[in-house]
Amino acid sequence: MTPPNPPRTDARRHHDPETRGFASDNYAGAHPEILAALALANGGHQIAYGEDDYTAHLQQVIRGHFGATAEAFPVFNGTGANVTALQALTDRWGAVICADTAHINVDECGAPERVGGLKLLTVPTPDGKLTPELIDREAYGWDDEHRAMPQVVSITQNTELGTVYTPEEIRAICEHAHGLGMKVHLDGSRIANAAASLDVPMRTFTNRVGVDVLSLGGTKNGALFGEAVVVLNPDAVRHMKHLRKLSMQLASKMRFVSVQLEALLAKDLWLRNARHANEMAQRLAEGVRAVDGVEILHPVQANAVFARLPHDVSERLQQRYRFYFWDEAAGDVRWMCSFDTSADDVDSFIAALKEEMAAR
Amino acid sequence: MTPPNPPRTDARRHHDPETRGFASDNYAGAHPEILAALALANGGHQIAYGEDDYTAHLQQVIRGHFGATAEAFPVFNGTGANVTALQALTDRWGAVICADTAHINVDECGAPERVGGLKLLTVPTPDGKLTPELIDREAYGWDDEHRAMPQVVSITQNTELGTVYTPEEIRAICEHAHGLGMKVHLDGSRIANAAASLDVPMRTFTNRVGVDVLSLGGTKNGALFGEAVVVLNPDAVRHMKHLRKLSMQLASKMRFVSVQLEALLAKDLWLRNARHANEMAQRLAEGVRAVDGVEILHPVQANAVFARLPHDVSERLQQRYRFYFWDEAAGDVRWMCSFDTSADDVDSFIAALKEEMAAR
Amino acid sequence: MTPPNPPRTDARRHHDPETRGFASDNYAGAHPEILAALALANGGHQIAYGEDDYTAHLQQVIRGHFGATAEAFPVFNGTGANVTALQALTDRWGAVICADTAHINVDECGAPERVGGLKLLTVPTPDGKLTPELIDREAYGWDDEHRAMPQVVSITQNTELGTVYTPEEIRAICEHAHGLGMKVHLDGSRIANAAASLDVPMRTFTNRVGVDVLSLGGTKNGALFGEAVVVLNPDAVRHMKHLRKLSMQLASKMRFVSVQLEALLAKDLWLRNARHANEMAQRLAEGVRAVDGVEILHPVQANAVFARLPHDVSERLQQRYRFYFWDEAAGDVRWMCSFDTSADDVDSFIAALKEEMAAR
Amino acid sequence: MTPPNPPRTDARRHHDPETRGFASDNYAGAHPEILAALALANGGHQIAYGEDDYTAHLQQVIRGHFGATAEAFPVFNGTGANVTALQALTDRWGAVICADTAHINVDECGAPERVGGLKLLTVPTPDGKLTPELIDREAYGWDDEHRAMPQVVSITQNTELGTVYTPEEIRAICEHAHGLGMKVHLDGSRIANAAASLDVPMRTFTNRVGVDVLSLGGTKNGALFGEAVVVLNPDAVRHMKHLRKLSMQLASKMRFVSVQLEALLAKDLWLRNARHANEMAQRLAEGVRAVDGVEILHPVQANAVFARLPHDVSERLQQRYRFYFWDEAAGDVRWMCSFDTSADDVDSFIAALKEEMAAR
Repeated sequence: MTPPNPPRTDARRHHDPETRGFASDNYAGAHPEILAALALANGGHQIAYGEDDYTAHLQQVIRGHFGATAEAFPVFNGTGANVTALQALTDRWGAVICADTAHINVDECGAPERVGGLKLLTVPTPDGKLTPELIDREAYGWDDEHRAMPQVVSITQNTELGTVYTPEEIRAICEHAHGLGMKVHLDGSRIANAAASLDVPMRTFTNRVGVDVLSLGGTKNGALFGEAVVVLNPDAVRHMKHLRKLSMQLASKMRFVSVQLEALLAKDLWLRNARHANEMAQRLAEGVRAVDGVEILHPVQANAVFARLPHDVSERLQQRYRFYFWDEAAGDVRWMCSFDTSADDVDSFIAALKEEMAAR
Repeated sequence: MTPPNPPRTDARRHHDPETRGFASDNYAGAHPEILAALALANGGHQIAYGEDDYTAHLQQVIRGHFGATAEAFPVFNGTGANVTALQALTDRWGAVICADTAHINVDECGAPERVGGLKLLTVPTPDGKLTPELIDREAYGWDDEHRAMPQVVSITQNTELGTVYTPEEIRAICEHAHGLGMKVHLDGSRIANAAASLDVPMRTFTNRVGVDVLSLGGTKNGALFGEAVVVLNPDAVRHMKHLRKLSMQLASKMRFVSVQLEALLAKDLWLRNARHANEMAQRLAEGVRAVDGVEILHPVQANAVFARLPHDVSERLQQRYRFYFWDEAAGDVRWMCSFDTSADDVDSFIAALKEEMAAR
Repeated sequence: MTPPNPPRTDARRHHDPETRGFASDNYAGAHPEILAALALANGGHQIAYGEDDYTAHLQQVIRGHFGATAEAFPVFNGTGANVTALQALTDRWGAVICADTAHINVDECGAPERVGGLKLLTVPTPDGKLTPELIDREAYGWDDEHRAMPQVVSITQNTELGTVYTPEEIRAICEHAHGLGMKVHLDGSRIANAAASLDVPMRTFTNRVGVDVLSLGGTKNGALFGEAVVVLNPDAVRHMKHLRKLSMQLASKMRFVSVQLEALLAKDLWLRNARHANEMAQRLAEGVRAVDGVEILHPVQANAVFARLPHDVSERLQQRYRFYFWDEAAGDVRWMCSFDTSADDVDSFIAALKEEMAAR
Repeated sequence: MTPPNPPRTDARRHHDPETRGFASDNYAGAHPEILAALALANGGHQIAYGEDDYTAHLQQVIRGHFGATAEAFPVFNGTGANVTALQALTDRWGAVICADTAHINVDECGAPERVGGLKLLTVPTPDGKLTPELIDREAYGWDDEHRAMPQVVSITQNTELGTVYTPEEIRAICEHAHGLGMKVHLDGSRIANAAASLDVPMRTFTNRVGVDVLSLGGTKNGALFGEAVVVLNPDAVRHMKHLRKLSMQLASKMRFVSVQLEALLAKDLWLRNARHANEMAQRLAEGVRAVDGVEILHPVQANAVFARLPHDVSERLQQRYRFYFWDEAAGDVRWMCSFDTSADDVDSFIAALKEEMAAR
């Protein structure tokens, strides 16, 4: 991807581009086609703050995926997408029902509460997935002013535990939520992996089944940075542009966010990247299952593998490959595959795992 | 800058890279050296969320500019930098004294108030510049619980009106503010233009004269996107990383923000870009001064030219070049030059201005 | 109901009930009829949080004053009333146009910004009164996401400077605001004094001329504590009860707020108290005008007298009577009369003023 | 001080002062000694906003209860006390660990999140009581910027389930929290009932065992309205007055809040009221235990009785006495006693319960 006569820059390379691990899909860099897209969009002047030609074109691409009423609002990152979306779907007195493992609950430093004044009503789940029954644990009290009013159900697809909702499961959630007067938000920071896993278009489990607003992920799918709030049900929101700006998610040179999403979504880069990551996770899971003493914890349906193994083995393995404990007390770890994970990476990792297990 | 065999991408070019105007320095794209830097930083895995090698190296670059205690916290955009910085410098009861023309007051959709709960105490100024005397209009009442407590003075360098504080002026503000127990924030979204205008290092009018925290601009200086909160006085702040995260300004693939700032700041790209933009503004101002009936409004000290001209002329000229009214009722307009403005662009624009003036 | 032998209490009297000053109308205690009303409402159980019989009856009283669609939401204090009302009238992206002397801007420690995330767009005024022309200085940019969206005009009647809008002036403001798609809030912490001054019912300058939501003051009118957000235009708001609760203004034993408002408003206690305070202010102003070297600063239209006098005289006088500087540098002071100010209080104060002026 | 002929008032009595139920201790009115105290504090002028003689004297009373460093900040209501206290103990990035049944989590319409930007980290408990072990479920990740930083443990004494922590249990919580660098807040809206239940002074389970800040309840203990944030550890907080004001909890005529707290706390009214309410709850529980088919759910340690009984019985009983379902699906109800509950009230209620059970 590097041109033969690279343009000069005063920056220097500080890392080894051959080193890869299993810590997170955002440890990866950008897909080369993304960098090419940035170069395409560069040069000349384009209106700032979203009135550029790339953002205009992105709307066509998004409508191709999510139907004629969909509109994309590019933002910087996933937390920004989620909090902008949830503010759009709530009043000042609103609350959001979500799984207690939801990214909005555990990984955003309270941004939903602090920036949006949102109350989260959390529900424990076995696998990161809400159901109508689980929603009902918090879906009540709309007339009770002492209670933050449940106005949104927020689900994550695929979930933070690597599991994937079927379209039917999401449809049931949407019908239930809508029947109770609530809206549905889908945190799709890894939506591409879910679509690849289900082998269906993204619309099949979003607008087609009733999701109102979507946080569409780009970063973990191979972009440099960049996500979008995608409004699927225009009647559910107002003044998205103001909300994006006050949430500090308005890029001035937005063409560079939009063209990355175009590069991903215009054809199949989003799907190629996601399928590859998912396949590597399957390869990894298969290899791990063959190792005695290591237990796979959740169904491996996307690009994450959760496993339980002896703590000392994890620690030695972490000296060779970077990855995270999910629940250190229990000995649970998370291994993530990304668009640039190679089969060799996986095989070497499994070999290392075997060595460390054998060294006990 | 485009390599001979460009890598494929499904994105397409939607704009004419030869079209430039005078609307804003963020209508420009990215400098080619920035794209080259992104390519350098790509490939392989790097720890996300700021523990990468590029962000580590950026600290050295920043210390070279701003002294041994400076620390940079890369963020996405200027509003994000400002609101993160101001939250760091205030308690829950704090207020910020600023010019009524300050970006934080007029251009951020209330993000300081909404995200940070900040009260802005605004002061009218003739030229966008605060002084100790102007600060004193709002600097009182620290013991009065009815009044939001003034804790920060925020200045913009160069100002939103294209004027530039001298180092001595900023020193006087800092001494005055510190003497009153307040801290000083400098919104430096165009700090490079100010340094080029003053022909001094950035430290000369920041850490050397008492500025506590700086919003360091990258986007308007030729980056794709990316700014940094630079803490100059570490005693003035705590837990910047938490504040950046809760302000939704934490990039997962932060290496790509940091390497852009490195490309700008490692040597002199920041200064080359700013000097060029400033020179183009001088060329533009010189040309405009020669046109009867057009008045230059503020000292042209950086890359902005403010002018007053007949409304009908502005409107016809806007059909040929995009730019904004600053005060439509008064007939005031703003023309901005950027790193990619060419002398031909300026000359053609002046010729067009003359034609439209002559057509009255 | 009052026992012949006053009930015991372990509390003791710590103050001299004969000492009165001119510092503020909230230095006064409660009118005896208010205490009698509290005793009436006491005893037995009443549903908490506003479903009691006193709050229900208050609605009739309020409708008698403000028309058939008015509804009162009792709250604790003026800041609480204002911030609840303004949140009700704005979206997350909304802004409020007000005089720069408005209580919401200068006396609420930033509660509108911090609790409500509200942006205040302030306008300087000569006399604390907005006009359509003054409103226009900030009434623009509804489509510009960089600008907090002007959604409400907030006026204070009578103003913080003791001046009183005519009904025609408020009608003009309301028509102008409504014509621009904005709503009108009236901060009526001293609305009774304004009505007494104009000698008209409160409705004449509120619902009759287009005010949408009112902060109705009780405390400065002789209550122990207690105000109400009065919704005059039900179409302008939603879910007031939730907003009141989340603003921490929901009294559990609300009967005791409501019965105080009933005591004031059922017949004419509100007007008796206000007329008396206003008369005392006229008596005070008349006396002051006869003192050489003391200047009355604003039209004395309600219960406040603003004056300019030599600084040393003020300081000596403050040793005899408590009152506040309004602008210490200019030598401006504020003298407030309240429902319990006596003619003797006024006359003695004028005599003291004369003595201190003579002592120079 | 009370006139022989009760003062007139235009308010009228709208309720039957002989009707009492078991719905809530805030359905009760004020104790007659409270009204007497209000009359004592009335008359004359007192400095507003807390500089009055009653608030000054209250500090002595508070120090008598809670030690020489305690300071009280009177506020309007319990939600206001809690949110003011929790803001004082947290930074912008702070989180609060609490039981999932805590009032701050389930009964304040999200005010902690909306007003204070607070993240609540909730833990399920069997009986409303936290323990060091339960705290540890959420006490981690202080260096992880993705996680809201646990800075406070908030406990309720007595709990929302009518259970009471022993002093030793609170000491263990405080030691654990302090050992982890966290502070401890105690929501004491019913602290008097807990002290009466334990038969110890309030200090025994607050400042003596390490509680940093207390929400001291007055309303449910017989006041008209009024609570106080009591700072027990002055090093734990800053600028409480500003926090109280920006939280809209600053009473202008504060003498009337303070004198109520004085009336309660100067001698033993607080304890008389609480003991009586607790005794009535014991009488009620005893009576209920004798009724076949009705189950007492939690230890009856204060003034609440939780019971499970057939749904139809509850509904018929509610037509005779007002009370609330706690968990309607399970058939759980809550019966509260208050300072004015009489033995006859309890006996009649038990008789009615028996009748309705027999009528099945």
